[in-house]
Amino acid sequence: MSEVAVGFAKENGERFVEELKELLRIPSVSTAPEHVGDVRAAAEFVKVGLETAGMENVRLIETSTKTRKGHPLVYAEWLHAAGKPTVLLYGHYDVQPAEPLDEWKSPPFEPEIRDGNIYARGAVDDKGQMWMHVKALESLLKTDGKLPVNVRVIVEGEEEVGGEGIAAFVREHGDQLKADAALVSDTEMFAPELPTLCVGLRGMIYTELEAKGAATDLHSGMYGGAAPNPFVALAQMIAQLKREDGHIAIPGFYDGIEEPTKAELEAWRSLPFDEEEYRKHEVGSTELTGETMFSVLERTWSRPTMDVHGMPGGFIGAGAKTVIPAKATAKISFRLVPGMKPEETFAKYKKFVEEICPKGIQVKVTMIHSGEPIVVSTDNEYVRAATDAMAKVFGKETVFVRGGGSIPIVGDFVRELGTPTVMMGFGLPDDNLHAPNEKFHLANFHRGIESIVRFLDGVGAGR
Amino acid sequence: MSEVAVGFAKENGERFVEELKELLRIPSVSTAPEHVGDVRAAAEFVKVGLETAGMENVRLIETSTKTRKGHPLVYAEWLHAAGKPTVLLYGHYDVQPAEPLDEWKSPPFEPEIRDGNIYARGAVDDKGQMWMHVKALESLLKTDGKLPVNVRVIVEGEEEVGGEGIAAFVREHGDQLKADAALVSDTEMFAPELPTLCVGLRGMIYTELEAKGAATDLHSGMYGGAAPNPFVALAQMIAQLKREDGHIAIPGFYDGIEEPTKAELEAWRSLPFDEEEYRKHEVGSTELTGETMFSVLERTWSRPTMDVHGMPGGFIGAGAKTVIPAKATAKISFRLVPGMKPEETFAKYKKFVEEICPKGIQVKVTMIHSGEPIVVSTDNEYVRAATDAMAKVFGKETVFVRGGGSIPIVGDFVRELGTPTVMMGFGLPDDNLHAPNEKFHLANFHRGIESIVRFLDGVGAGR
Repeated sequence: MSEVAVGFAKENGERFVEELKELLRIPSVSTAPEHVGDVRAAAEFVKVGLETAGMENVRLIETSTKTRKGHPLVYAEWLHAAGKPTVLLYGHYDVQPAEPLDEWKSPPFEPEIRDGNIYARGAVDDKGQMWMHVKALESLLKTDGKLPVNVRVIVEGEEEVGGEGIAAFVREHGDQLKADAALVSDTEMFAPELPTLCVGLRGMIYTELEAKGAATDLHSGMYGGAAPNPFVALAQMIAQLKREDGHIAIPGFYDGIEEPTKAELEAWRSLPFDEEEYRKHEVGSTELTGETMFSVLERTWSRPTMDVHGMPGGFIGAGAKTVIPAKATAKISFRLVPGMKPEETFAKYKKFVEEICPKGIQVKVTMIHSGEPIVVSTDNEYVRAATDAMAKVFGKETVFVRGGGSIPIVGDFVRELGTPTVMMGFGLPDDNLHAPNEKFHLANFHRGIESIVRFLDGVGAGR
Repeated sequence: MSEVAVGFAKENGERFVEELKELLRIPSVSTAPEHVGDVRAAAEFVKVGLETAGMENVRLIETSTKTRKGHPLVYAEWLHAAGKPTVLLYGHYDVQPAEPLDEWKSPPFEPEIRDGNIYARGAVDDKGQMWMHVKALESLLKTDGKLPVNVRVIVEGEEEVGGEGIAAFVREHGDQLKADAALVSDTEMFAPELPTLCVGLRGMIYTELEAKGAATDLHSGMYGGAAPNPFVALAQMIAQLKREDGHIAIPGFYDGIEEPTKAELEAWRSLPFDEEEYRKHEVGSTELTGETMFSVLERTWSRPTMDVHGMPGGFIGAGAKTVIPAKATAKISFRLVPGMKPEETFAKYKKFVEEICPKGIQVKVTMIHSGEPIVVSTDNEYVRAATDAMAKVFGKETVFVRGGGSIPIVGDFVRELGTPTVMMGFGLPDDNLHAPNEKFHLANFHRGIESIVRFLDGVGAGR
């Protein structure tokens, strides 16, 4: 059965890419209020795609949180495989902001193919990978008229802003997403040609730390030396949050952290990873930073960390303005690992910055969004079906890795729904996620579709 | 003679304000490349004003530095008072950027009069005060047909960006500005109704500290914990530059500083200054900061300090973007006091940040502009003429203060030309210089014109 569907996918591969391009042209930046219409347009596009594939009961589900109207979920189902398991396919159609725009070689929302890669914001994260799911379903339904398993599809538009809408939906209507397993394609392969399953993700809290000093902007000549400077205060606080050796100095920050197992650590050591290569070709800095007593994979997969993403306020134009701004803000996030809870970490962080706040400054800490860290079980038939499927496509044994990023809803699938989750992703380490010149290797787009067809077939065949 | 001129100024006071409004409508922001045409338009406006006043040889003088074309100087003269001293009048027609625009009650370049104050960017710094000079000359020339002394006028368009153009002109053509004394109105009165001469100014260096980490922006989920974060690095460096007690930790930073004299410190102590009032109504913060072993006046007049004005880079939009930016910058300035040299302070600062630069980060330190600190002599006939003039206008004894800000060219007048300089300013402490809602108290605009008329008359009368 899969062979016919795989044949269909190959014959229609070019069309699939053209459709993906159309989707990539929609600037569905979920964090930007000015793009709210584009985000909805992307949802509509996905809905039409699922209908065309032959899925049933396709619809938008509106979401909202306490404070605002959310972006819609796209739902679809096909539930006629009596006696077979139900698989929940998850993806997201929203994207990160494209800034800084001047560093893109081709415009972020005008997809361009160069050297076998498609370049656009969202190419791999996650429009391209989500579209693989839609096209795998289409390939099966158009050739066989049915699916080998029952399938539910849920595609969200808030993954890049914390996924509150889908989280609320799972809490309140989890039964509508009831499944025996979930398939998520929003991760990457450890190396080119190396089939990879992701079995753990860091969680996160994304916050704003605002420092207020004087009542109004002041002239630094007249007041410098007596008026509090919010940027200097933020710098002093940030320097106390994270030491130069990468250690986070918030009291109790590391309490309760669950270490990876010995077997997992050993498996990581056998992965094809060259720290010097990584430094040179992925990061491109003179040195790597962080807790040197841990390996780079541990530092990015199983150790929590802190980053500052931007510091709005004051004067940022060309040239000079001698202002002591009344307030300044730092966008600060923490990545969390199993054993840490977002609310608890936030509370410790808030308490600490309130304690160390320099005099003359008032701090306000705001949680922008959060997601829980997770690890998933690898000992089940779904993981086996996934590794078998990828072995056929890639001709290689699958490696198990973790991801340093967060996919907030996966934690909810695992915890709220108790659904075994397979994170089978086809990105590459140099795909520039969240950065200028994001790309997706087109060969992996096609191999992804084939892998998903074979995975669903494998689950349906009872192994 | 002055009485007639003063009468003329009073009769024409409303017209003078209407003219000032026209000048304030020109957004001559010298640091902004997009306003280069407006800056020139302001220069032309001043030129016409000086011609109308009856000054001679009025012309624009083009300036340039090694790296760019500068904004023009406006020059004028009237040299027919044989045997009398020559006074050089200095002012500037450029202004600070108006950002943040949303905090202005009326638009920064649409002057509005409320409660006896004129609100606009540049109202007091320095268009309003420079216009007092022009109108004082007009009042004398239109009534008496001549001036009581020889006068040269030089008005620059780069004071807010370091005044490199006028500095080069003074170095190369200082003879064209030859004078027995200089009058500068770009400072403020210590308190309302209290005539004030400023006898010292802090110098400054304005710099950009750029930190570069990875070769490109990175996803903080995937790379957080291993990739250097330029904002965290800047925070760590800034926290090491300035301690929480206000002490600057750069080695040798305070070397060679000249303390104010005992008499000067005593005079400062007798000024009507209430630290709590200042904190509450001028600064508006919960506490004042800085070196508490020094008084607030010392901290802002005779102690060097450091401020951060803005930190461009990364993501500063609404919401969240989980980026580790490839680079980030801090706009950092230092205020210098007598005994410090801008180049030497810059060299110590540069050496220090290069030493403390966290690993994985490359720093680049750039000097944007600088100005030397100065103190001027108070024991000369020009200072006596100024205090006499103000005593007549205000009916009060003049106080001597220093200013915390910088007027770069004043140092050059004092050092290069050896010109005794009188800094007679009419701003008020709450005039919001360099901040939203900048204003000039109109009563002080008119009293300033009268004071200048009487000052020139006093100098001409030989006392």
